[in-house]
Amino acid sequence: MAGATYDVLGIGNAIVDILVQTEDDFLSENGLTKGAMALVSAEEQHALYDKTGQAIESSGGSAANTLAGIAALGGRAAFAGKVMDDQLGSVFAHDIRAAGVTFDTAMANDGAPTATCLVLISPDGQRTMQTYLGACVDFSTADLDHAQVEAAQVTYLEGYLWDPDPAREAFFQASRIAHDAGRKVALSLSDPFCVDRHRDGFMAFIAEHVDILFANEDEILSLFQTDDFDAAQERVRGMVGIAALTRSEKGSVIVSADEIISVPAAKVDRVIDTTGAGDAYAAGFLAAYTRGHSLKQAAQLGGLLAAVIIQQIGARPSASVQHLLQDLDG
Amino acid sequence: MAGATYDVLGIGNAIVDILVQTEDDFLSENGLTKGAMALVSAEEQHALYDKTGQAIESSGGSAANTLAGIAALGGRAAFAGKVMDDQLGSVFAHDIRAAGVTFDTAMANDGAPTATCLVLISPDGQRTMQTYLGACVDFSTADLDHAQVEAAQVTYLEGYLWDPDPAREAFFQASRIAHDAGRKVALSLSDPFCVDRHRDGFMAFIAEHVDILFANEDEILSLFQTDDFDAAQERVRGMVGIAALTRSEKGSVIVSADEIISVPAAKVDRVIDTTGAGDAYAAGFLAAYTRGHSLKQAAQLGGLLAAVIIQQIGARPSASVQHLLQDLDG
Repeated sequence: MAGATYDVLGIGNAIVDILVQTEDDFLSENGLTKGAMALVSAEEQHALYDKTGQAIESSGGSAANTLAGIAALGGRAAFAGKVMDDQLGSVFAHDIRAAGVTFDTAMANDGAPTATCLVLISPDGQRTMQTYLGACVDFSTADLDHAQVEAAQVTYLEGYLWDPDPAREAFFQASRIAHDAGRKVALSLSDPFCVDRHRDGFMAFIAEHVDILFANEDEILSLFQTDDFDAAQERVRGMVGIAALTRSEKGSVIVSADEIISVPAAKVDRVIDTTGAGDAYAAGFLAAYTRGHSLKQAAQLGGLLAAVIIQQIGARPSASVQHLLQDLDG
Repeated sequence: MAGATYDVLGIGNAIVDILVQTEDDFLSENGLTKGAMALVSAEEQHALYDKTGQAIESSGGSAANTLAGIAALGGRAAFAGKVMDDQLGSVFAHDIRAAGVTFDTAMANDGAPTATCLVLISPDGQRTMQTYLGACVDFSTADLDHAQVEAAQVTYLEGYLWDPDPAREAFFQASRIAHDAGRKVALSLSDPFCVDRHRDGFMAFIAEHVDILFANEDEILSLFQTDDFDAAQERVRGMVGIAALTRSEKGSVIVSADEIISVPAAKVDRVIDTTGAGDAYAAGFLAAYTRGHSLKQAAQLGGLLAAVIIQQIGARPSASVQHLLQDLDG
């Protein structure tokens, strides 16, 4: 994969997270499903926000977090996603660039405000999310920079981008551009509920366009509507070149045509906030993979970065993690 | 002081902090004075922000932090300060109310955006601040709720509010209303540079209007333009009923007409971020004082809450601290 300017280009929803510590009672009292991401209107999000405690704001978005992680590891990263030209849009743009990620998508000048995700963090570190997509629904094929897609070894798409219609079309176009340029396409399934909303579309898209699939256990089981992980593993093996399946404290399994590799989870002293664990795994995996390391090493680096992320508040590495990839490089 | 609805009403700049971890080299390269707060234009702040790493946003403001601390301890707290009706203004309003503080100041509908303070946190936990006052400069006597001032045992003013002219006038008016209602007026000197900007004004105001003065060592030395702490202590004793002088790891000294009480600092394992240490001290002091505890106990609770705050990121208590005041109540 010579001649690439970027190791990975991510396309996803550009979101600012509003992080609040909460008790599990608050979730049940408000009819929220613990651990899930729900799409809500601005009004619904605001009504819930009014009931929560003091918050902090931190740039988020699944693919955006992954690209920030790749850049933190020393990879060459770009991101495309839509914010409004407002205060939180400026926060998002600042943070992703400050992370070392190229971000050139034009800000919207009218329409909905920058997307926000109300992240309720339970005492056990699990997060429950209410997302108002805002300006993200205006991301379309017009926002795709063809040359940027062609210049990236891997174009990484988040499943959540399937929710806004115009973005889904950009998904397909980006995949075609990437493959025409001899590049790879990766997809994260994002969330079991997201899989449930778009199962048929995902199945067809994966079979036809995806080279590397990221999914956690709930997501891959939801995709194939089974409760048998081994069965899901076999089915995904026939659909996609590489599947990286994460299983929380059980580590991850890499499924390819030639082999199935199980990698144990990295050591974690105390889970603080699971926000961004899957995003970080994909970051570690792709940073190692695009540097030419083995699938096993890629899975190991994914697990290491996920362990870093769940032991802090927020979804992007706050400490320097560059040595993790450098250690692999030897 | 019977019949009060609030223990403390705070009047101050309503600011959202933008917190960034930084190296000391970054400060010197950009000509910044470590530990100081500087007032800057929106453009100056933005130029510096563009050079910083990933940030998180958290509601701040000196008096606002103090009132959030008082509410967290179980005190009855109100705050007055000016934000714009924009995204960060909504963040500020949400957070102070979520902290349990009454906040009824009308948002501005035009003019400058909500104030932001770029807080650069050094590896040793010291913070260097660049404040763009934004909407704060529009706080005026028109924003004072006379009944609220009359209903508060103590009206607490932050020295920083001396910077915007219309707010300074509100300072004087609030003091007159409070004293006419038989209430107390407290002032924090905020920052040695702030003292330097307004020394003569502060001296006259303290002598005439202030019942309880909060200052750290640098601030009280700056006020009297001396490097002799004992001399400063004697001078302040003649000016004000109670002076609470904080000295970092040396604890605090309470100076009153009758006595001088030294209280050692609370135990701190590791300093993470000193943002809000003085604000937290004032919170603990005033929460205990307005509950009728002794000056020594007030100083102890101030020191305890300051110790909590410097061992976390951000200037408001994130854990439940209510037991600290309850323990004093016995």
